[in-house]
Amino acid sequence: MKQSQLFTKTRKEAPKEEVSRNAQLLIRGGYIDKLMAGVYTYLPLGLRVLKNIEQIIREELNKAGGQEILMPAFQPKENWELTKRWDIDILYKTKDFEGREYALGPTHEEVVTPLLKQFISSYRDLPRAVYQFQDKFRMEKRAKSGILRGREFLMKDLYSFHANEADFDLYYGVMKKVYGEIFKRCGIGHKTYLTFASGGIFSKYSHEFQTITPAGEDLIYICDNCSLAINKEIKDETPKCPQCNHADFKEEKAIEVGNIFSLKTRFSDAFNLKYKDEKGELQPVIMGCYGIGLGRLMGTIVEALADDKGIVWPETVAPFKVHLLGLAGKEGSAVTEAAENIITELEHVGVSVLYDDRDATAGAKFADADLLGMPYRVVISEKTLAEKSAEVKLRQTGETTLVKLDHLVAHLK
Amino acid sequence: MKQSQLFTKTRKEAPKEEVSRNAQLLIRGGYIDKLMAGVYTYLPLGLRVLKNIEQIIREELNKAGGQEILMPAFQPKENWELTKRWDIDILYKTKDFEGREYALGPTHEEVVTPLLKQFISSYRDLPRAVYQFQDKFRMEKRAKSGILRGREFLMKDLYSFHANEADFDLYYGVMKKVYGEIFKRCGIGHKTYLTFASGGIFSKYSHEFQTITPAGEDLIYICDNCSLAINKEIKDETPKCPQCNHADFKEEKAIEVGNIFSLKTRFSDAFNLKYKDEKGELQPVIMGCYGIGLGRLMGTIVEALADDKGIVWPETVAPFKVHLLGLAGKEGSAVTEAAENIITELEHVGVSVLYDDRDATAGAKFADADLLGMPYRVVISEKTLAEKSAEVKLRQTGETTLVKLDHLVAHLK
Repeated sequence: MKQSQLFTKTRKEAPKEEVSRNAQLLIRGGYIDKLMAGVYTYLPLGLRVLKNIEQIIREELNKAGGQEILMPAFQPKENWELTKRWDIDILYKTKDFEGREYALGPTHEEVVTPLLKQFISSYRDLPRAVYQFQDKFRMEKRAKSGILRGREFLMKDLYSFHANEADFDLYYGVMKKVYGEIFKRCGIGHKTYLTFASGGIFSKYSHEFQTITPAGEDLIYICDNCSLAINKEIKDETPKCPQCNHADFKEEKAIEVGNIFSLKTRFSDAFNLKYKDEKGELQPVIMGCYGIGLGRLMGTIVEALADDKGIVWPETVAPFKVHLLGLAGKEGSAVTEAAENIITELEHVGVSVLYDDRDATAGAKFADADLLGMPYRVVISEKTLAEKSAEVKLRQTGETTLVKLDHLVAHLK
Repeated sequence: MKQSQLFTKTRKEAPKEEVSRNAQLLIRGGYIDKLMAGVYTYLPLGLRVLKNIEQIIREELNKAGGQEILMPAFQPKENWELTKRWDIDILYKTKDFEGREYALGPTHEEVVTPLLKQFISSYRDLPRAVYQFQDKFRMEKRAKSGILRGREFLMKDLYSFHANEADFDLYYGVMKKVYGEIFKRCGIGHKTYLTFASGGIFSKYSHEFQTITPAGEDLIYICDNCSLAINKEIKDETPKCPQCNHADFKEEKAIEVGNIFSLKTRFSDAFNLKYKDEKGELQPVIMGCYGIGLGRLMGTIVEALADDKGIVWPETVAPFKVHLLGLAGKEGSAVTEAAENIITELEHVGVSVLYDDRDATAGAKFADADLLGMPYRVVISEKTLAEKSAEVKLRQTGETTLVKLDHLVAHLK
């Protein structure tokens, strides 16, 4: 894609009222736009990142037997009354011309449980796992963390249904690994820790995935011995690591990028979701719930990997793999011609390219490439052409090499 | 995918209160589930259709220079006051803990206009076209048409921005063709008519795309000579075809599957969206708006193509191309083994297969295959195996042929 065709533009300064680093960088780069506190538009570059993250999550969930659906944002008041959650303070509500009230879903247990009740009657119908990527609404008092904490935000929520605790435990273990794989593929695996948290009323522990970064709003304690972490909430009552029993922890600031937890029969009881076991006896269905906020994950990648020059995207989620800069390339010039050849060749082998064809100084183009953060910056100029080469710079390390044009496609593939 | 693994099941009867044929068939097939009047969940099969439609639209819009974004459902009250639309009767509203009110977007002129204002300042920044696939909310009084008329529904809305009327007219003409191509690729091109409608306060005509079907809520009048149509709204004041001047029309019931219209400077005036022309003088930006409801399009395909046995999907939007039925195939049997070989071979060449591996009668499987409506039904049984063949039936025509197993992949590719 030609950068001159993009309707967005980079900015030197972020809006003054925006205090979070992720939103500052993403707004400056033209990835997102802030409509209101906690409510953002995803612009073309930002939507490409979001879709890449979505596809990674989808692939990993499908491997684990998840079936994708799409539930509505509107949810009937009666369902929320049944679970005694109509009055929770994060719930946005609306009403229609007849005065009938709806919740705007902050989560979907109140929809997915009666939905699955239509299809689960026997032990043969279990286990089941369904998930969606869907717009959530949460009345957050504080919304100053950019896309880390939205009032409206895209979330992946998966719900699992089991015949018994043992089957639930098995799937819960699978999802721990699936989540680990998702964060690894999104480029933050090395900074993300499985973290024990309070299980609330349902079980001893639930689990969070926490990514360490100075911008983190949470504190976690990482076991020096086995790298398991525990969160602040349970630190006092958990003097020893629940996994290896060692007692030395390192405190780190972190962002929660995902959580998984047991719902036991909290919702299946409310909606009378039962199945007949092998003996023909009615048993309650055991449920689990597994969430990832897509904007939150995207914001965490920015916070965890950005440097003082701008964003650093991992190749797996970057909007484009290559940012090609044509320097002093007037139309019809050798530089422009070479650039266009490179684009054709790279796109032919499936490498996505953002081409900075703007009439701007080399300095402005370099600064924007650093801000936008594509993994590979490729510069082509009269100087590099004299060497029949292009200059390739890795955004992450800053490492620069001159690569012969003949080898460029193989180098970047 | 194995049908026994799908968490949904087909039903013999549709819910009694569901009066529309599209929803009856889609609910019976396990494509969708009704949560409330006008509010539906898309189940795995239904979501696959929706995503296929979305991808066709995306490809055609990208070809026409559209840039995809994702705007929020929440919209600030002030923007709707500015355009004097805060009190329109279809608008759902909500408020937060501070009493601040938001609209739940039924359309996005109030967001996209101030968004583009940030990036358009000169004639060099025009034209622009941005679009999204996004969840819309409309307080419909009547919501009895299944997924044809939702209170919550996924919509593609594109907005275009132009320096002058001539450039707008050019793009409007392009979009007419793009829409024609979209409906053609979705398999309803032969039943869909470009239809002149009232232009309202902005221009003489706007344009609808109307698909003829007995379930249509609209009446259109198709010119006997040139196949252009006009809608009921303008019939009385338009005795002659606006295209060829002939006066003979055929009346048909139809569903509006898309519309395109001029916004002139209605919204750019409200948000003071202007650009500097070549002489440095400020000019208002001309806007256009182009919508397609994805559920409505999916429901229209069902209404227009279904027969008395069930749904008939065009190959381009079908959840699976092939519905493979294994008859009397016990585990380890020759039928099961042959079926699994066929799946492997078809998926290897990119043909998607739904495999009915359920322990059910041949009659039940045949009835479900007709209800679900995949383009190709492939039956494999001991009888067909004796001929080293499978029976291939075209859902649309009912035409049946016995195809040698060796030729099956080539036949279905």
